[in-house]
Amino acid sequence: MKNTHTAPSELSVQDAQACILGKIRPLAPEEIPLSQTLGRALAEDVRANRDLPPYNTSAMDGYAARAADIAAPPQILNVIEDIKAGDTPRLALQPGQCARIMTGAPLPQGADTVIRVEDTRPLDETHVEFPIPVKQGTDIRLQGEAMRTGDVVLNVGEEITPGTVGTLATVKHATVKVFRKPRVAILSNGDELEALDDPFNPQKIPDANSYALMAQTQSLGIEPALLGIARDTPNALATLLKRGLGYDVLLISGGTSVGVHDHVRPTLATISVEMHFWCVKMRPGHPVAFGTIGNTLVFCLPGNPVSSMVCFEQFVLPALRALMGHRRLLRRTLPVRLTQAVKSKQGRVEFIRATLSRDASEGYYQATPTASQSSGNIRSMASADVLAIVPNDSGGLTAESITQAQLLEGAAFQ
Amino acid sequence: MKNTHTAPSELSVQDAQACILGKIRPLAPEEIPLSQTLGRALAEDVRANRDLPPYNTSAMDGYAARAADIAAPPQILNVIEDIKAGDTPRLALQPGQCARIMTGAPLPQGADTVIRVEDTRPLDETHVEFPIPVKQGTDIRLQGEAMRTGDVVLNVGEEITPGTVGTLATVKHATVKVFRKPRVAILSNGDELEALDDPFNPQKIPDANSYALMAQTQSLGIEPALLGIARDTPNALATLLKRGLGYDVLLISGGTSVGVHDHVRPTLATISVEMHFWCVKMRPGHPVAFGTIGNTLVFCLPGNPVSSMVCFEQFVLPALRALMGHRRLLRRTLPVRLTQAVKSKQGRVEFIRATLSRDASEGYYQATPTASQSSGNIRSMASADVLAIVPNDSGGLTAESITQAQLLEGAAFQ
Repeated sequence: MKNTHTAPSELSVQDAQACILGKIRPLAPEEIPLSQTLGRALAEDVRANRDLPPYNTSAMDGYAARAADIAAPPQILNVIEDIKAGDTPRLALQPGQCARIMTGAPLPQGADTVIRVEDTRPLDETHVEFPIPVKQGTDIRLQGEAMRTGDVVLNVGEEITPGTVGTLATVKHATVKVFRKPRVAILSNGDELEALDDPFNPQKIPDANSYALMAQTQSLGIEPALLGIARDTPNALATLLKRGLGYDVLLISGGTSVGVHDHVRPTLATISVEMHFWCVKMRPGHPVAFGTIGNTLVFCLPGNPVSSMVCFEQFVLPALRALMGHRRLLRRTLPVRLTQAVKSKQGRVEFIRATLSRDASEGYYQATPTASQSSGNIRSMASADVLAIVPNDSGGLTAESITQAQLLEGAAFQ
Repeated sequence: MKNTHTAPSELSVQDAQACILGKIRPLAPEEIPLSQTLGRALAEDVRANRDLPPYNTSAMDGYAARAADIAAPPQILNVIEDIKAGDTPRLALQPGQCARIMTGAPLPQGADTVIRVEDTRPLDETHVEFPIPVKQGTDIRLQGEAMRTGDVVLNVGEEITPGTVGTLATVKHATVKVFRKPRVAILSNGDELEALDDPFNPQKIPDANSYALMAQTQSLGIEPALLGIARDTPNALATLLKRGLGYDVLLISGGTSVGVHDHVRPTLATISVEMHFWCVKMRPGHPVAFGTIGNTLVFCLPGNPVSSMVCFEQFVLPALRALMGHRRLLRRTLPVRLTQAVKSKQGRVEFIRATLSRDASEGYYQATPTASQSSGNIRSMASADVLAIVPNDSGGLTAESITQAQLLEGAAFQ
């Protein structure tokens, strides 16, 4: 049970992340239809191709008028025109005149103010009374107020959200330059594993990792390739590993410990993968390794499903997001109040699966650890809303402590 | 400018949501491949088809032994076997014997304890010294500890997250019964609108809503159909509306005010859509309406892009999630500290687009309103992390107030 390969000593989570991100540049840009851009990162600054509004418009349904004409209310004005969005006003307002106007419609020449319909008293088709004064300029949207031709309206690296898609449509980008998505391959490892389509054998361990990692990858908008299960012989493993090197990112779970039966380390060495670290001061997930060969990133994740998923969140997720050109690389954290004491081993960061709840004060969320914190129990990842972080110098936290927690996928809704 | 249709008076946001959700049942279940289930809701309880672990296993790399044999350390035991994950132990331990064992490997008969490799001193291939005592039962995972055959491991209505996918793979669900996704159609309305593929005309208003609503729908895993832009004639609108009634949900933006030029209300009436409300006490988004015809839900959203998106978040999003069978229907809210005072009109809930930041204390997030709160400025939705809620009875909030904020799509990462 000797470690047959030398490797740097174990890193902190932050140092391991820095090591990984230091080796990553965004992938090449590609131009794709607007309808496929959600969740991608912009590969270019985007400029406005028009003024918005294109002219001074009404912000309300009401009447366009000259403020001077209604400065001493009540005043009755002549309605000379009816202007709706998309119209071009035909007449300029003269003193004593006004125009009926709809939200978004262009202001007629001479008008400097909009009076909301609820602040008026229509008398007949062509006369309306203004019972109260209205300040000049009220309820007008000025030309170029929302954007001005040539303005940078979106910046390279911005994540494309629904608001971004709306902005891109506004400046008429039917196609958009974004950074390419990484191609990701996933590989499980171990003689004890039963594939999803293998016949049922109650003595085997089902291969959960391939699918949990698949789903974590999918949650970033990437459809991974599942390479299957490598059996515990160097040849079987080498064959699948080499296939994995055709991808941008290869995820291997299981078989990465230092035991004599763990072939991953020696096999990676024979195919010349340069390893940058072999373990991280964290739990679950201590035996997590990272290497590179050419432009391929290789992550060796633990065999326990929970450990493997927690390591994905800390290391693979920021790597995939960095490859996609995102600026925001980590899960959103939020402060939570622990409902129970949690233990941790000095010198390791502990990630506690927990569910969120709130009390009537609507202050900090309460985080309650899931019943089982065993790294073999994948149900704890199915039920968790967050990974609550127990810092590595704390040696545990007492009940009622406030700590930071990473918001998992399913906790976006409540 | 008379309201030609009677409708109930304006509702609160909560009453409007309750009105909508009261008319919704989850859609029919369908069975789909596990690889396509992420983000869907389970339409059945899922039970374990196996014990996990299937037998008592080692939780660590080390030695399986009898605790009694090392009760008085140091003790030297004979190594009689080498057991890795997937093996079946050939020998039962006799007093004075131990077996080398890997994480996940089955315990040999007679063993009751695992001693981690770092707590041992291997002497030669067949002898190992145990310098410290280890409590009986240490580092053993008991059969059925993670799940027991027949246990309900996932419940109907649970959102399928990566952890759920891993759990489903564990119980060998290659296909999964989930609630069907709604089919959604999107329609914009207005003569002033320029379609994405129309020639550029700087006097027109680009149709941002179709695409922003498309992306909001996509963010829930639903690919909507874009029906295009209805021009401002009752016939053009009626034709597209009728096409929209072939979907589960029809979203119409623009033209829903009470003005004489707004055809949406009368046209909905002619095609017998039953309207349940016409406006909600909120800003932006006051003129938002909801109706039903047969099994189709019809939402009339404001023409301003921001208003339309905010109304989607409050009303369409929970409706789509309810149709998909989800239990969690609303965006996650979190408490934030406002960096600026915000105004609001008494009697209306105000949704403030804001960005999140943190100070060193890592307590509550700070929320800073985006530069423009104009509902015509879609860039404010592109840059916002949250919609901060100004309650309808507050009349505004002072700087440093704590209030609740809805976490938008792009704020899942930091």
